[in-house]
Amino acid sequence: MVKASICTIGDEILIGQIVDTNSSHISLALENCGVQVTRMISIPDDHADIITSLARELDSNDIVISTGGLGPTKDDITKNALAELFGAKGWKTHEGQLRIVHEILHSRGLDVLDINLKQAEVPDCCEVIENHHGTAPIMIFTRPDGHKLYSLPGVPHEALGALDEVLADIKKHFKLDSIYHKTIMVYGFAESALSQLIEPWEDSLKSLGIHLAYLPNTSTGIRLRLSLFGGEESANALKVEKALSGLREILGDNIYSEQDETLESVIGRLLRGSGKTLSAAESCTGGMISHMITTVPGSSEYYLGSVTSYAIAVKEKVLGVPSETIEANGVVSSEVAAAMAEGVRKLTGSTYAVSTTGLAGPGGDERNPEGTVWIGVSGPHGTITKRFQYHNDRKRNIERFAASALDLLRRYILNDKQ
Amino acid sequence: MVKASICTIGDEILIGQIVDTNSSHISLALENCGVQVTRMISIPDDHADIITSLARELDSNDIVISTGGLGPTKDDITKNALAELFGAKGWKTHEGQLRIVHEILHSRGLDVLDINLKQAEVPDCCEVIENHHGTAPIMIFTRPDGHKLYSLPGVPHEALGALDEVLADIKKHFKLDSIYHKTIMVYGFAESALSQLIEPWEDSLKSLGIHLAYLPNTSTGIRLRLSLFGGEESANALKVEKALSGLREILGDNIYSEQDETLESVIGRLLRGSGKTLSAAESCTGGMISHMITTVPGSSEYYLGSVTSYAIAVKEKVLGVPSETIEANGVVSSEVAAAMAEGVRKLTGSTYAVSTTGLAGPGGDERNPEGTVWIGVSGPHGTITKRFQYHNDRKRNIERFAASALDLLRRYILNDKQ
Repeated sequence: MVKASICTIGDEILIGQIVDTNSSHISLALENCGVQVTRMISIPDDHADIITSLARELDSNDIVISTGGLGPTKDDITKNALAELFGAKGWKTHEGQLRIVHEILHSRGLDVLDINLKQAEVPDCCEVIENHHGTAPIMIFTRPDGHKLYSLPGVPHEALGALDEVLADIKKHFKLDSIYHKTIMVYGFAESALSQLIEPWEDSLKSLGIHLAYLPNTSTGIRLRLSLFGGEESANALKVEKALSGLREILGDNIYSEQDETLESVIGRLLRGSGKTLSAAESCTGGMISHMITTVPGSSEYYLGSVTSYAIAVKEKVLGVPSETIEANGVVSSEVAAAMAEGVRKLTGSTYAVSTTGLAGPGGDERNPEGTVWIGVSGPHGTITKRFQYHNDRKRNIERFAASALDLLRRYILNDKQ
Repeated sequence: MVKASICTIGDEILIGQIVDTNSSHISLALENCGVQVTRMISIPDDHADIITSLARELDSNDIVISTGGLGPTKDDITKNALAELFGAKGWKTHEGQLRIVHEILHSRGLDVLDINLKQAEVPDCCEVIENHHGTAPIMIFTRPDGHKLYSLPGVPHEALGALDEVLADIKKHFKLDSIYHKTIMVYGFAESALSQLIEPWEDSLKSLGIHLAYLPNTSTGIRLRLSLFGGEESANALKVEKALSGLREILGDNIYSEQDETLESVIGRLLRGSGKTLSAAESCTGGMISHMITTVPGSSEYYLGSVTSYAIAVKEKVLGVPSETIEANGVVSSEVAAAMAEGVRKLTGSTYAVSTTGLAGPGGDERNPEGTVWIGVSGPHGTITKRFQYHNDRKRNIERFAASALDLLRRYILNDKQ
């Protein structure tokens, strides 16, 4: 299998001020076209370290993808190190990238500074892929042994914007093995409970040569990834389909997608084109459900809006929750969750509405511990509520509450469709 | 300087299905107590690779911190590799951790499974720090040369929950150099424009021995980090304070904090204890502003709530935006932004209100290109609006819109206080 290493260059990563999100996107893309990522490393903006580390990674991998160290406020330290590593004789200006530098800065009403112009200069021994999302070009260096280094900018949308062209170049120069992946999205289990439940099924995968990975995430539940290496795509697809029928029997509608999708995308898929609409009433989730729903492009077709009723007065006045309901049951209660969902449904005229009232923390109240949430869903066939209890910090509790609300909404809509 | 390497173990990172956020938190914590992070690596769940890679990192660093590979669904591959690497003679059960395993599972109403019990077993040559946030213990191994390896769980809140105790152990065993950091948060500039503006000031830092790092982020603007290595803390603080007076003259209220804070935390700080309150009316930001405001613990003291008016009918009916205003100016306009802010302020009775109406994309409309947003802020001294134009994808445009809205709100409140 063709092997790759991903190298992130930049002091800002090593001093912990930014999280490297490029590496995971790049490795996912490489994996999906049959390149095995053997290692990721992050190294400082240090000339000698860049040369030593990249040379070592190039020795043990066919491909090295580096990101970072190309920004206008850096001293072009990566570019100089690469020039030395690959024995450049001099520098050349890439005219295509120079045009892009001018275009980008003009479109933003900015002056073209000397530091911007310098970005279109590259070592004379490299090939260039134009970067249409930013000013620094993508550089390709090839060693005499055929091993290749791709140097990408560190800014995520620039690095990822160039990825398709980088992958095309990789496919042109390397013979890649086939790989077959299938992703199943599951909501409603802790990792260890799911593992216990599907253990016999998991054991049966070995004879089929299928490898299983568990990938839990606060906002999307557990992602199960089935992988087959080598072989024909159609035969692999058949094998996986055979295995999946067993899993579907065990998990039923706890499986919310058989693609790599989020809960909010699935809700979008259920509602789009149906003429049905959605609204939300949020207390403890503070706008996160609405934010998640509206990250989906085209959500304006079915999403009408929401009320975040952080204050009790907003619950009463805007959503019409009766003050007696709050007094009798407390703010965090099934009754208030139901009244909030019904209130926002009436206010917006939506087909469905989802609501949350809970305690994200820090701290609980006299009736409920920290981490308690009541979720309501209201629709044409009445209102349901459900209580969940989580044990995380404020940020993660909010994420769990929002994801559980979207999952309860999904189950209601699914049920409604039958 | 004491050197450290951070090693993340897990196939799920190399296949790109999860982003490693532990490393940045750990490196920030190490840096802040004077440990230099020289490298971060991510390696697969492979026995031989774990042993080779960790041994190499231990050769060139005083400290190695590893995370991952300890979960209940793994085959304890990290633990076995560590036992071999450090020459363990056998296994021991850690009674404290065993109690925690029982407590955690009982509190969640789960059965204690064999795979859970096995988590309290550790190689006999290691010390243990109890993990109170999860079932896998933190293990400390020491080589004859004094170099130490700390093995943490991969689950972020477990790894970070144990960090204080790990740092205490590091401080006990290593003599750490002093390091002085000061963080300045700036909003309203592109990185290259800010760099150009403060270039003469930046040059003057060299004579003071101060190192400057630029750390741009969509939601927080640009973080400037000034660092001094060695020396007395009080002398370093004086040097940095002297340098800062020059920066304050150049940037004025574009500096929104002199600590490592977010815009929403600063707004919280301005409003807390003032008796003033806040609400929001969101269209294109879809709930993100409200979500950001409510991530701040204690925000319920000043935050009343919000309306996400994704549909025009909600803008008119709930926020009271006159339909003539929308017809005459279009939804994405100064007039609608103003009416939304005034509408939600009236609806909730808040002191201040912030609003957004724009086009996050994909696609613009007949009046405005994709990436346009009008932001409104209303308060006791009237309503202001401002137009911004960004050039990113949907997700990043929403982040930019929300951050720019919080910044305009911050400037309004500051102005009001004077």
